[in-house]
Amino acid sequence: MKCTVCRGPAVIDLRRHNANFCGDHFLKFCRDQVAKAIDDHAMVERGERVLVAVSGGKDSLALWDLLLALGYDAEGMVIGLGIGDYSAASTAAAVAFAGERGLPLQVVDLRGTYGYDIPTAAAVTRRVPCSSCGMSKRHLIDKAALDGGYDVVATGHNLDDEAAVLLGNVLHWQTEYLGRQVPVLPARDGFPRKVKPLVRLAERETAAYCVLRGIDYIVEECPMAAGNRHLRYKAALNDIEAASPGTKHAFYFEFLDKAAGHFQPEAATAQEALAPCRSCGAPTTGEVCAFCRLVERTSGVDPVPVELVRPGRKRRSGGTRRQAAAPSAGPVGP
Amino acid sequence: MKCTVCRGPAVIDLRRHNANFCGDHFLKFCRDQVAKAIDDHAMVERGERVLVAVSGGKDSLALWDLLLALGYDAEGMVIGLGIGDYSAASTAAAVAFAGERGLPLQVVDLRGTYGYDIPTAAAVTRRVPCSSCGMSKRHLIDKAALDGGYDVVATGHNLDDEAAVLLGNVLHWQTEYLGRQVPVLPARDGFPRKVKPLVRLAERETAAYCVLRGIDYIVEECPMAAGNRHLRYKAALNDIEAASPGTKHAFYFEFLDKAAGHFQPEAATAQEALAPCRSCGAPTTGEVCAFCRLVERTSGVDPVPVELVRPGRKRRSGGTRRQAAAPSAGPVGP
Repeated sequence: MKCTVCRGPAVIDLRRHNANFCGDHFLKFCRDQVAKAIDDHAMVERGERVLVAVSGGKDSLALWDLLLALGYDAEGMVIGLGIGDYSAASTAAAVAFAGERGLPLQVVDLRGTYGYDIPTAAAVTRRVPCSSCGMSKRHLIDKAALDGGYDVVATGHNLDDEAAVLLGNVLHWQTEYLGRQVPVLPARDGFPRKVKPLVRLAERETAAYCVLRGIDYIVEECPMAAGNRHLRYKAALNDIEAASPGTKHAFYFEFLDKAAGHFQPEAATAQEALAPCRSCGAPTTGEVCAFCRLVERTSGVDPVPVELVRPGRKRRSGGTRRQAAAPSAGPVGP
Repeated sequence: MKCTVCRGPAVIDLRRHNANFCGDHFLKFCRDQVAKAIDDHAMVERGERVLVAVSGGKDSLALWDLLLALGYDAEGMVIGLGIGDYSAASTAAAVAFAGERGLPLQVVDLRGTYGYDIPTAAAVTRRVPCSSCGMSKRHLIDKAALDGGYDVVATGHNLDDEAAVLLGNVLHWQTEYLGRQVPVLPARDGFPRKVKPLVRLAERETAAYCVLRGIDYIVEECPMAAGNRHLRYKAALNDIEAASPGTKHAFYFEFLDKAAGHFQPEAATAQEALAPCRSCGAPTTGEVCAFCRLVERTSGVDPVPVELVRPGRKRRSGGTRRQAAAPSAGPVGP
């Protein structure tokens, strides 16, 4: 297997591009793809301050490294989610990456600062852990970006992530989400601009990038995400991609070209309904935002161990509300 | 396992409906679902003449039986596709069903009347067999309906079929097809009205219906469809449905409710470009319709055996045209 560019020994084959690359040309390929994504979608201007949402996984560390390699002013933020050893190791990977390179990294600990962690939030809300986790991360990164005067938040969503989210959105025709599933969300009252510079790179490519760049990332998947819908959608798309390389790319980019615009009225209508949270000022559809409500509901609740919250638990839509998976005789709120 | 209706012993469980049924109540369930589909989408009026596109498989025979059970005036048409033993057995199943019940069935043989069969068409056109097969069937059923003065054509597409086609259409955002993927296509110049009364029944349910009604259908899948995209999309959706029963139903019916309308401008634009075929008068985008072109291209070509045409063969989109899978030194036209 030879590098498509220099004919030297290749280290990776990319079937959807019908190309193989040696290490150096693969790294260049990754930089080029990120530069193209930033350029095509006008994500970041030169000189703007970027806040990278770092998890300690391959995508966010590759993203940070790539933005720096492309000459952007990028700083990091990591959130301690309190998901047992997994969160400890994730934060440690982010801290080590930043420390070795002398990069500024803001560390926020959910329990230390807000008095809860994700397993406890999942038990109290009786919803899948990913629900309060995603909400908490979005809230805190938005807040950090606005408080810190950053121009833009960059997240490590890759092509596999975006294709799987898109599949979930079309399987249920969540038209409001479809209208918002774009690689750049412009800034508006109470929200910073948010961009996804890795949308042209697959999961396997960000992993290979980290290996070739000597970046130590946390390899484990989140134990609370195991078996969730997002991973099932990824698996379904992987089966299709294996038989028809390029399907994920076409699915996502042809959506942007041909369909996303159709759903923007639905997304815009949902946005009009936002007003500042009475407690923290963040945009919300209710009086108090979901983050402040979660802090309130988990206040004083003892930590629930990860092992007691069933991962990827789903509720049947339209069904009656069931008993939470958390221990029934425990410190679990309503 | 007890019948949800009468508490007698159940013969089938339907997870997406959270219900089990005994034989009698399952048959009633099927009739009710078809009646609801016909009613919800205004498919057929009482007294109209229906032409059922019959293949000899479970779906089309169940459809014919159900339409008769619901009191509709339904006659059948089957097309001999010339796919070796498979087609012979399929036509025989349709003929036996009609014969035992004294029902009118029109039999059209592709090679006998039009001088080609599907394996030969696939070899000559160098495309997947499903391509010329679908086109030929659509052309001939439309023609038979118009020539015979039928009010409407009914096809046996079930929920699994429609969900898989929808997945294919969204994976490539074929917006014109999305705008047309509705359970009723109204009649217009040169096209009869076309309806899909089985859209509320899954594949497993039409099979169970046939078994319970003592209908002998051809169980084998078409040998030329093996490994095609449609079957891959079905498999991907089956994996998702197994974990989340009801996903296929939501995918298809929420599409109809919330998204199909967005794509109707694209579908309408494509329809405006149709004009009568110079040769047969059927609506087409070119001077001569695809069916007449295929008859012309296959004229005088010796039959190509099924075994020599690779099933489910795909061409890479955007790639260069390759050598056909048919024998290179054979009676294969350009």
